[in-house]
Amino acid sequence: MTTPPWNRRRLRSNNEWLLLERLRLEGPASRAQLARESGLSKPTVSSALAALERAGLVREAGTHAQSRGRVAVLYEPDPRAGFVLGIDIGRARLRTAVADLSGEIVARTEVRNRGRSALSVADAAVGCAEQALAEASLTPADIVRTAVGTPGVFDRPTGRVRYAVNLPGWGRPGLIERMRDRLGTPLSVHNDANLAALGEYTFGSGAGSRLFVYVLIGTGLGMGVVADGELFLGAHGAAGEIGYLPLDGVPATGTAPRRGLLEDAVSADGVVRAARELGMTGPLTAKRVFDAARAGAPAALAAVRQEGERLALAVASVSAVLDPDLVVLGGGVGRGADLFLTTVTQTLHRLTPLRPRIEASTAGDDVVLLGALTLAVRAARPEVFERRTGGA
Amino acid sequence: MTTPPWNRRRLRSNNEWLLLERLRLEGPASRAQLARESGLSKPTVSSALAALERAGLVREAGTHAQSRGRVAVLYEPDPRAGFVLGIDIGRARLRTAVADLSGEIVARTEVRNRGRSALSVADAAVGCAEQALAEASLTPADIVRTAVGTPGVFDRPTGRVRYAVNLPGWGRPGLIERMRDRLGTPLSVHNDANLAALGEYTFGSGAGSRLFVYVLIGTGLGMGVVADGELFLGAHGAAGEIGYLPLDGVPATGTAPRRGLLEDAVSADGVVRAARELGMTGPLTAKRVFDAARAGAPAALAAVRQEGERLALAVASVSAVLDPDLVVLGGGVGRGADLFLTTVTQTLHRLTPLRPRIEASTAGDDVVLLGALTLAVRAARPEVFERRTGGA
Repeated sequence: MTTPPWNRRRLRSNNEWLLLERLRLEGPASRAQLARESGLSKPTVSSALAALERAGLVREAGTHAQSRGRVAVLYEPDPRAGFVLGIDIGRARLRTAVADLSGEIVARTEVRNRGRSALSVADAAVGCAEQALAEASLTPADIVRTAVGTPGVFDRPTGRVRYAVNLPGWGRPGLIERMRDRLGTPLSVHNDANLAALGEYTFGSGAGSRLFVYVLIGTGLGMGVVADGELFLGAHGAAGEIGYLPLDGVPATGTAPRRGLLEDAVSADGVVRAARELGMTGPLTAKRVFDAARAGAPAALAAVRQEGERLALAVASVSAVLDPDLVVLGGGVGRGADLFLTTVTQTLHRLTPLRPRIEASTAGDDVVLLGALTLAVRAARPEVFERRTGGA
Repeated sequence: MTTPPWNRRRLRSNNEWLLLERLRLEGPASRAQLARESGLSKPTVSSALAALERAGLVREAGTHAQSRGRVAVLYEPDPRAGFVLGIDIGRARLRTAVADLSGEIVARTEVRNRGRSALSVADAAVGCAEQALAEASLTPADIVRTAVGTPGVFDRPTGRVRYAVNLPGWGRPGLIERMRDRLGTPLSVHNDANLAALGEYTFGSGAGSRLFVYVLIGTGLGMGVVADGELFLGAHGAAGEIGYLPLDGVPATGTAPRRGLLEDAVSADGVVRAARELGMTGPLTAKRVFDAARAGAPAALAAVRQEGERLALAVASVSAVLDPDLVVLGGGVGRGADLFLTTVTQTLHRLTPLRPRIEASTAGDDVVLLGALTLAVRAARPEVFERRTGGA
């Protein structure tokens, strides 16, 4: 009983928190309405609302005509009680956005990732974030939380990012510390596929799924898992590192390759390699392979088919372990889903009786950024409440 | 706001519930102690304890000498406020036990599973449970919850058990209904590997693991996942059906086999088949193969080695998806873990950089039964509280 949950002061501030959550989740309401719904007395509701208003947490939101010509004031959460910053460090693009506590984006910047070294990438991301802050006329002091998405898994004990084999130098120590110091805001680091999963769950086709899985296929291969609306991270944050799924049984000798076998096979350069082996020539990218497949080129179609079969292996493995009800394919290679979705589904039928729904991503290019903002806002809300009410 | 959480009546019964949980989790305490820890007034604590005592939920637990020769009464939860029943339906044995609300077993019965049909197995399990009730001098009315462990996944919409390919006829409709009706207690059905995971987590080597995985290798192959102390079930309760993990890439044609490829390869008859192919003769069981391996027979050693390599494939897949910190191998085949644990670990090093700790089960043969009791007690505690307090 380290923090007794029924301490009086806690109960009072708990009422305020619950009223605030009620206003956020179900929209503006008057004192009378809140009293009716809660069973609390009107004076109790009034004093709680007054405290929330003094703390800058709720504001008036117009009025509501009542019987006998009287008018009731409606209240809503003040979204400007705090702000968050989201940063997406992708190999091709750096994206940042500032959002208020309601999750609405108030400024957004995006630049190409031209960084030659991990240090210059980190500095460019900070510059991008500072630009977004300036656009929103905010300072770092206004930012309650910053959430950063990168490939790999952030290892708290060492402060380093692990398994980010596609972002050269990104595993060096001190990078995250440097971003935190230069930005001057609390900052947390998250796997890009995890944030994409949360973004797709919140703003794309994941809504309502009980066990939702987002497969990010691009330069690398990653997966994010959302269970009952919450990110599922595993014991060390490495859940969903499906690039390391075994592909063809047990190798006779040797040590584990630095890059996962499945990642090597199905990520963008895997698609290009397959297309070359199947006879395509000239300068190739995954996008060019997909374009050629759409135009009916046999080698490209064969490469796309192989991609679908290998992704089906991944989905079969994930289904046997997690039992998802929805698997969404996203990322740069995921944009070819229209070409290989049927192959994935048909191959799955040959592999397993466990068959989740499989769809292409609909949340767009900002999906990692949106996930970062979602995570930052979720963490910021109770923190802003505690700060502004001086809560327990 | 369907059930306003700050309703007054709720707050009062909430105090009673929190006091009861405090006594359960941290041991007997006096009124003065509880008042000090909670910040509630002594009269409030006294009246809550009196209400709990009247409801039969707490009882006196001796006294405690205080300063100036005064003596304080200590209170503890009354474990006999309710009872639960656990049933383990295994292919070889039927096990049942009755436990009180503290989880202590008050009666236990076990018989061989001689059932020729699914119906006779269900009836034998009921008979076994009735015997345990009689031993405990209880009636079905005393049982708040019954939890049953079986292979397969119970499908609520159809009321049938799916994927239980190793218990013949166990998928027929009405079986569970029949057990519920004959026993006359509320009854829920759970996957045996899930219950084993919870049993091993609570009473074996899983304690303290953040993401714990129990692999049940016997007649079949299953896995249970415990995340932060709670069973992780997936969208339809099929999480951990790793018997369906793909084994060697994509099959060229055909539909998914009824029995999973990995289950077929690593379960008891897979071990026997491998040993035969490697040259062992005579009547074989997995146990005999293990005994021969312990005696140094080369064919048996080779079969055991292959078992370890295939299990490493399973562990590698599970690690890429879930990121467990501990994998426990259990079940009849798991009893050979001393023979193949080193192979599993070494093979894992060739497959992936993600390497959880791997251990043999220590919870014993009752692990499924213990998991059933744990789950039933967890569900029964709040239910008994609500019933006896007429709570919200």
